[in-house]
Amino acid sequence: MNSPDAVESSTIAEMEEMIARISSHKGVEGVMIMDRRGAIIQSTLDEEQTSTHAKALSDLTAKASSIVGMLNQNDELTFLRIRSKQREIVISPDKDFLLVVLQNPKSVE
Amino acid sequence: MNSPDAVESSTIAEMEEMIARISSHKGVEGVMIMDRRGAIIQSTLDEEQTSTHAKALSDLTAKASSIVGMLNQNDELTFLRIRSKQREIVISPDKDFLLVVLQNPKSVE
Repeated sequence: MNSPDAVESSTIAEMEEMIARISSHKGVEGVMIMDRRGAIIQSTLDEEQTSTHAKALSDLTAKASSIVGMLNQNDELTFLRIRSKQREIVISPDKDFLLVVLQNPKSVE
Repeated sequence: MNSPDAVESSTIAEMEEMIARISSHKGVEGVMIMDRRGAIIQSTLDEEQTSTHAKALSDLTAKASSIVGMLNQNDELTFLRIRSKQREIVISPDKDFLLVVLQNPKSVE
Protein backbone atom coordinates (compact mmCIF):
# COMPACT_ATOMS: atom_id res chain seq x y z
CA MET A 1 0.00 0.00 0.00
CA ASN A 2 1.51 3.36 -1.06
CA SER A 3 2.15 5.53 1.96
CA PRO A 4 1.81 9.20 0.99
CA ASP A 5 5.55 9.89 0.98
CA ALA A 6 6.18 6.92 -1.32
CA VAL A 7 3.92 8.49 -4.01
CA GLU A 8 6.12 8.83 -7.09
CA SER A 9 7.14 12.35 -8.08
CA SER A 10 5.50 11.94 -11.53
CA THR A 11 2.22 11.19 -9.81
CA ILE A 12 2.66 14.23 -7.55
CA ALA A 13 3.26 16.43 -10.60
CA GLU A 14 0.11 15.05 -12.24
CA MET A 15 -1.86 15.69 -9.07
CA GLU A 16 -0.59 19.28 -8.82
CA GLU A 17 -1.64 19.88 -12.41
CA MET A 18 -5.08 18.38 -11.82
CA ILE A 19 -5.56 20.44 -8.64
CA ALA A 20 -4.55 23.65 -10.45
CA ARG A 21 -6.98 22.86 -13.28
CA ILE A 22 -9.90 22.07 -10.95
CA SER A 23 -9.16 25.04 -8.69
CA SER A 24 -9.40 27.38 -11.66
CA HIS A 25 -13.09 26.53 -12.12
CA LYS A 26 -15.46 29.21 -10.84
CA GLY A 27 -17.05 28.28 -7.52
CA VAL A 28 -14.42 25.75 -6.47
CA GLU A 29 -13.49 26.44 -2.85
CA GLY A 30 -10.98 23.68 -2.25
CA VAL A 31 -9.42 20.54 -3.69
CA MET A 32 -7.85 17.68 -1.74
CA ILE A 33 -6.20 14.42 -2.70
CA MET A 34 -5.76 11.76 -0.04
CA ASP A 35 -5.12 8.05 0.09
CA ARG A 36 -8.07 5.79 0.86
CA ARG A 37 -7.33 5.95 4.60
CA GLY A 38 -7.51 9.73 4.61
CA ALA A 39 -3.78 10.52 4.70
CA ILE A 40 -3.31 13.85 2.90
CA ILE A 41 -1.28 13.98 -0.29
CA GLN A 42 -2.26 17.38 -1.65
CA SER A 43 -4.65 20.08 -0.43
CA THR A 44 -5.50 23.67 -1.23
CA LEU A 45 -7.18 24.15 2.17
CA ASP A 46 -5.35 25.37 5.28
CA GLU A 47 -3.95 22.76 7.64
CA GLU A 48 -6.81 22.75 10.12
CA GLN A 49 -9.50 22.62 7.44
CA THR A 50 -7.58 19.92 5.62
CA SER A 51 -7.33 17.58 8.58
CA THR A 52 -10.98 18.11 9.63
CA HIS A 53 -12.27 17.47 6.12
CA ALA A 54 -9.93 14.59 5.39
CA LYS A 55 -10.87 12.51 8.41
CA ALA A 56 -14.62 13.03 8.03
CA LEU A 57 -14.79 12.56 4.27
CA SER A 58 -12.54 9.50 4.09
CA ASP A 59 -14.68 7.87 6.80
CA LEU A 60 -17.85 8.70 4.88
CA THR A 61 -16.38 7.38 1.64
CA ALA A 62 -15.29 4.16 3.33
CA LYS A 63 -18.81 3.70 4.73
CA ALA A 64 -20.47 4.41 1.36
CA SER A 65 -18.04 2.05 -0.34
CA SER A 66 -18.77 -0.78 2.10
CA ILE A 67 -22.52 -0.26 1.73
CA VAL A 68 -22.28 -0.45 -2.06
CA GLY A 69 -20.28 -3.70 -1.74
CA MET A 70 -22.70 -5.09 0.86
CA LEU A 71 -25.75 -4.41 -1.32
CA ASN A 72 -24.08 -6.00 -4.37
CA GLN A 73 -20.73 -7.81 -4.19
CA ASN A 74 -19.99 -7.07 -7.86
CA ASP A 75 -20.53 -3.36 -7.50
CA GLU A 76 -18.05 -0.58 -6.63
CA LEU A 77 -18.42 3.04 -5.53
CA THR A 78 -17.42 5.45 -8.31
CA PHE A 79 -18.70 8.81 -7.11
CA LEU A 80 -20.19 10.46 -4.02
CA ARG A 81 -21.95 13.83 -4.12
CA ILE A 82 -22.93 15.52 -0.84
CA ARG A 83 -25.11 18.54 -1.49
CA SER A 84 -25.99 20.88 1.36
CA LYS A 85 -27.57 24.31 1.56
CA GLN A 86 -24.27 26.14 1.36
CA ARG A 87 -21.94 23.79 -0.43
CA GLU A 88 -21.39 20.75 -2.59
CA ILE A 89 -18.73 18.16 -1.80
CA VAL A 90 -17.83 15.80 -4.63
CA ILE A 91 -15.68 12.74 -3.90
CA SER A 92 -14.21 10.66 -6.69
CA PRO A 93 -12.49 7.52 -5.40
CA ASP A 94 -10.09 5.41 -7.43
CA LYS A 95 -8.06 2.37 -6.39
CA ASP A 96 -5.49 4.23 -4.25
CA PHE A 97 -6.64 7.83 -3.93
CA LEU A 98 -9.65 10.02 -3.15
CA LEU A 99 -10.13 13.26 -5.06
CA VAL A 100 -12.31 15.69 -3.08
CA VAL A 101 -13.68 18.92 -4.57
CA LEU A 102 -15.48 21.47 -2.39
CA GLN A 103 -17.58 23.92 -4.38
CA ASN A 104 -20.19 26.59 -4.01
CA PRO A 105 -23.14 25.14 -5.92
CA LYS A 106 -24.59 28.58 -6.70
CA SER A 107 -21.55 29.81 -8.57
CA VAL A 108 -20.41 26.62 -10.29
CA GLU A 109 -20.16 27.04 -14.09
CA MET B 1 -41.39 12.49 16.83
CA ASN B 2 -43.80 10.91 14.33
CA SER B 3 -43.60 7.15 14.55
CA PRO B 4 -44.35 5.62 11.12
CA ASP B 5 -47.87 4.44 12.07
CA ALA B 6 -48.78 7.92 13.29
CA VAL B 7 -48.12 9.34 9.78
CA GLU B 8 -51.39 10.96 8.73
CA SER B 9 -53.35 9.23 5.98
CA SER B 10 -53.17 12.34 3.76
CA THR B 11 -49.37 12.18 3.95
CA ILE B 12 -49.45 8.47 3.12
CA ALA B 13 -51.62 9.18 0.07
CA GLU B 14 -49.19 11.88 -1.06
CA MET B 15 -46.28 9.49 -0.59
CA GLU B 16 -47.97 6.74 -2.59
CA GLU B 17 -48.61 9.18 -5.42
CA MET B 18 -44.98 10.38 -5.35
CA ILE B 19 -43.69 6.79 -5.33
CA ALA B 20 -45.92 5.86 -8.28
CA ARG B 21 -44.73 8.91 -10.23
CA ILE B 22 -41.02 8.26 -9.52
CA SER B 23 -41.36 4.53 -10.18
CA SER B 24 -42.77 5.24 -13.63
CA HIS B 25 -39.47 6.82 -14.73
CA LYS B 26 -37.34 4.60 -16.94
CA GLY B 27 -34.42 3.05 -15.07
CA VAL B 28 -35.89 3.43 -11.58
CA GLU B 29 -35.41 0.12 -9.75
CA GLY B 30 -36.89 1.01 -6.39
CA VAL B 31 -38.27 3.80 -4.23
CA MET B 32 -38.36 3.92 -0.44
CA ILE B 33 -39.60 6.44 2.09
CA MET B 34 -38.47 6.12 5.68
CA ASP B 35 -38.24 8.32 8.74
CA ARG B 36 -34.86 9.76 9.65
CA ARG B 37 -34.07 6.77 11.88
CA GLY B 38 -34.63 4.32 9.04
CA ALA B 39 -38.11 3.06 9.97
CA ILE B 40 -39.87 2.14 6.72
CA ILE B 41 -42.98 4.03 5.71
CA GLN B 42 -43.29 3.00 2.05
CA SER B 43 -41.17 0.81 -0.21
CA THR B 44 -41.41 -0.77 -3.62
CA LEU B 45 -38.63 -3.27 -2.80
CA ASP B 46 -39.28 -6.69 -1.28
CA GLU B 47 -39.09 -7.03 2.49
CA GLU B 48 -35.54 -8.31 2.72
CA GLN B 49 -34.15 -5.72 0.26
CA THR B 50 -36.09 -3.00 2.03
CA SER B 51 -34.69 -3.72 5.48
CA THR B 52 -31.10 -4.14 4.20
CA HIS B 53 -31.22 -0.88 2.24
CA ALA B 54 -33.06 1.08 4.92
CA LYS B 55 -30.62 0.37 7.71
CA ALA B 56 -27.50 1.03 5.63
CA LEU B 57 -28.77 4.15 3.85
CA SER B 58 -30.27 5.82 6.91
CA ASP B 59 -26.96 5.29 8.73
CA LEU B 60 -25.03 6.78 5.81
CA THR B 61 -27.40 9.74 5.59
CA ALA B 62 -27.09 10.37 9.34
CA LYS B 63 -23.29 10.31 9.02
CA ALA B 64 -23.29 12.66 6.00
CA SER B 65 -25.70 14.97 7.78
CA SER B 66 -23.53 15.13 10.90
CA ILE B 67 -20.40 15.78 8.81
CA VAL B 68 -22.10 18.67 6.99
CA GLY B 69 -23.14 20.14 10.37
CA MET B 70 -19.68 19.59 11.85
CA LEU B 71 -17.94 21.35 8.92
CA ASN B 72 -20.36 24.31 9.08
CA GLN B 73 -22.94 24.71 11.86
CA ASN B 74 -25.21 26.79 9.61
CA ASP B 75 -25.30 24.21 6.86
CA GLU B 76 -27.69 21.31 6.27
CA LEU B 77 -27.60 18.22 4.06
CA THR B 78 -30.07 18.52 1.18
CA PHE B 79 -29.09 15.67 -1.16
CA LEU B 80 -26.82 12.62 -1.29
CA ARG B 81 -25.92 10.84 -4.53
CA ILE B 82 -24.05 7.52 -4.36
CA ARG B 83 -22.93 6.44 -7.81
CA SER B 84 -21.45 2.99 -8.32
CA LYS B 85 -20.60 0.91 -11.38
CA GLN B 86 -23.99 -0.76 -11.52
CA ARG B 87 -26.35 1.66 -9.85
CA GLU B 88 -27.12 5.11 -8.55
CA ILE B 89 -28.71 5.72 -5.16
CA VAL B 90 -30.19 9.16 -4.60
CA ILE B 91 -31.24 10.21 -1.10
CA SER B 92 -33.30 13.32 -0.50
CA PRO B 93 -33.71 14.09 3.20
CA ASP B 94 -36.28 16.50 4.60
CA LYS B 95 -37.11 17.33 8.21
CA ASP B 96 -38.90 14.07 9.03
CA PHE B 97 -38.45 11.71 6.10
CA LEU B 98 -35.84 10.28 3.72
CA LEU B 99 -36.79 9.66 0.10
CA VAL B 100 -34.50 7.05 -1.48
CA VAL B 101 -34.49 6.31 -5.21
CA LEU B 102 -32.48 3.39 -6.63
CA GLN B 103 -31.87 3.67 -10.35
CA ASN B 104 -29.88 2.15 -13.16
CA PRO B 105 -27.70 5.05 -14.33
CA LYS B 106 -27.37 3.66 -17.84
CA SER B 107 -31.06 3.67 -18.59
CA VAL B 108 -32.17 6.80 -16.72
CA GLU B 109 -33.99 9.28 -19.04
